[in-house]
Amino acid sequence: IGNLFRLAVVQLHVTKVKADNLSRARGLIKEAAARGAKLVVLPECFNSPYGTGFFPEYAEKIPGESSQVLSEAAKESQVYLVGGERNSGQPVGTVPVAGQPVGLVCVKQWAIHLFDIDVPGKIRFQESETLSPGSNLSVFDTPYCRVGVGICYDIRFAELAQLYSKKGCQLLVYPGAFNMTTGPAHWELLQRGRAVDNQVYVATASPARDETASYVAWGHSTVVSPWGEVISKAGSEETVVYADIDLQYLANVRQQIPITAQRRSDLYTVNAVQEG
Amino acid sequence: IGNLFRLAVVQLHVTKVKADNLSRARGLIKEAAARGAKLVVLPECFNSPYGTGFFPEYAEKIPGESSQVLSEAAKESQVYLVGGERNSGQPVGTVPVAGQPVGLVCVKQWAIHLFDIDVPGKIRFQESETLSPGSNLSVFDTPYCRVGVGICYDIRFAELAQLYSKKGCQLLVYPGAFNMTTGPAHWELLQRGRAVDNQVYVATASPARDETASYVAWGHSTVVSPWGEVISKAGSEETVVYADIDLQYLANVRQQIPITAQRRSDLYTVNAVQEG
Repeated sequence: IGNLFRLAVVQLHVTKVKADNLSRARGLIKEAAARGAKLVVLPECFNSPYGTGFFPEYAEKIPGESSQVLSEAAKESQVYLVGGERNSGQPVGTVPVAGQPVGLVCVKQWAIHLFDIDVPGKIRFQESETLSPGSNLSVFDTPYCRVGVGICYDIRFAELAQLYSKKGCQLLVYPGAFNMTTGPAHWELLQRGRAVDNQVYVATASPARDETASYVAWGHSTVVSPWGEVISKAGSEETVVYADIDLQYLANVRQQIPITAQRRSDLYTVNAVQEG
Repeated sequence: IGNLFRLAVVQLHVTKVKADNLSRARGLIKEAAARGAKLVVLPECFNSPYGTGFFPEYAEKIPGESSQVLSEAAKESQVYLVGGERNSGQPVGTVPVAGQPVGLVCVKQWAIHLFDIDVPGKIRFQESETLSPGSNLSVFDTPYCRVGVGICYDIRFAELAQLYSKKGCQLLVYPGAFNMTTGPAHWELLQRGRAVDNQVYVATASPARDETASYVAWGHSTVVSPWGEVISKAGSEETVVYADIDLQYLANVRQQIPITAQRRSDLYTVNAVQEG
């Protein structure tokens, strides 16, 4: 298997027509596989517009129509697949991960941190009005490396990435939909921060930007190296972003700047306890 | 006192002549105070070239020549002062903080994380060859806000900033000397990351760049807002950087994106314990 594998991030143009979303996703997964991708990541809400008004209507049981398509796509394209959808049988934002070669949904995840923000005159959004947070960490293994999954707002919490890193994840993926305020301010910064602090690869998958939608996504799906460099980045349109994940390079970075081994967990823990 | 105060970062040109370093620092502190600064930060090793070969020669007892100058400068200029020096009576990198109006050294700090890196063909530096790490967190109070101090390499450790933030620090200051490899790659990214993740102000104080030195500092002393924006930044030359620290703005940011209140400490702790 070696130390190198290709990751693809599908920046899907999501419409209100679920069947279109599913078939376009399936086509792009196939295209990504044809170009050598072994792991494919779809955006948050790849089958539904983003918005609390849409969540109940587009939510599905798992297994259901969307997870069935994901399973079939993973099987036909022989890839690992991360696809976030709203699950009517779970509180929020389940991400089925379809695994090669069995094509089954193998882990589930939902957002641990709900997106409740209010920047006056810019953006207000309260996921907690219709959703409940999850309480599971989500880590899955592939033959290439261990992968940690967070959803969108989860990326703001350094602690989650630190936990995933401690659990041995070398790649963190965040299906997410930042907006036209928080996107330019923080989207890339947060990814590069998670990457350099934990010396892991970080990938984000956003829907393509739709200026006519009620919630306009920033786009700019990105892959960042363990050195904190942006190695691939989409614009705002529908596209597939590729990156070769090089685990030997990751090991080199960790050797060059050995912060993982140098952490003073003794101090952090003692002082955290003192603090209550 | 209000919610606003002026911070100054002195990007000192450090030479091998200690007396010059001290008198130039004192002059720039005076200048900063005349322009309204209430808290002044000097670079790491403001009185000595950076390099393991210099540390024993330039190290001093505290109180000593350098800390005496800091105390007098703080008193004459009526400012709080953070000045990093090597203390021969302590393991490494003590930062005396001289407090207005008493002019006394009031807290001590040394690097918790030693700088041991090896990027082949670029930069190799092993502080641990001559230094030992400290084990004290360093927090001090001013009438304006609580301040946490880290030294240089400490900024790579997100956990330290998280602890300081939990302890109520609203400003983190890092006297530090990144180099021509790690400076362009990570200096600004790390500061912006600490700021946005903890919603605090972050200030770094580097020596000015000296191309003739054995260790060439990156310069670019910077102040970052709790929104992750660079609000002031030096080039590579000797200069003083100013920033108005606005605690009301900080409070607004925390209200708009309330990640501080939304942290899932329940999950982080449980999973950290499971992990051992």
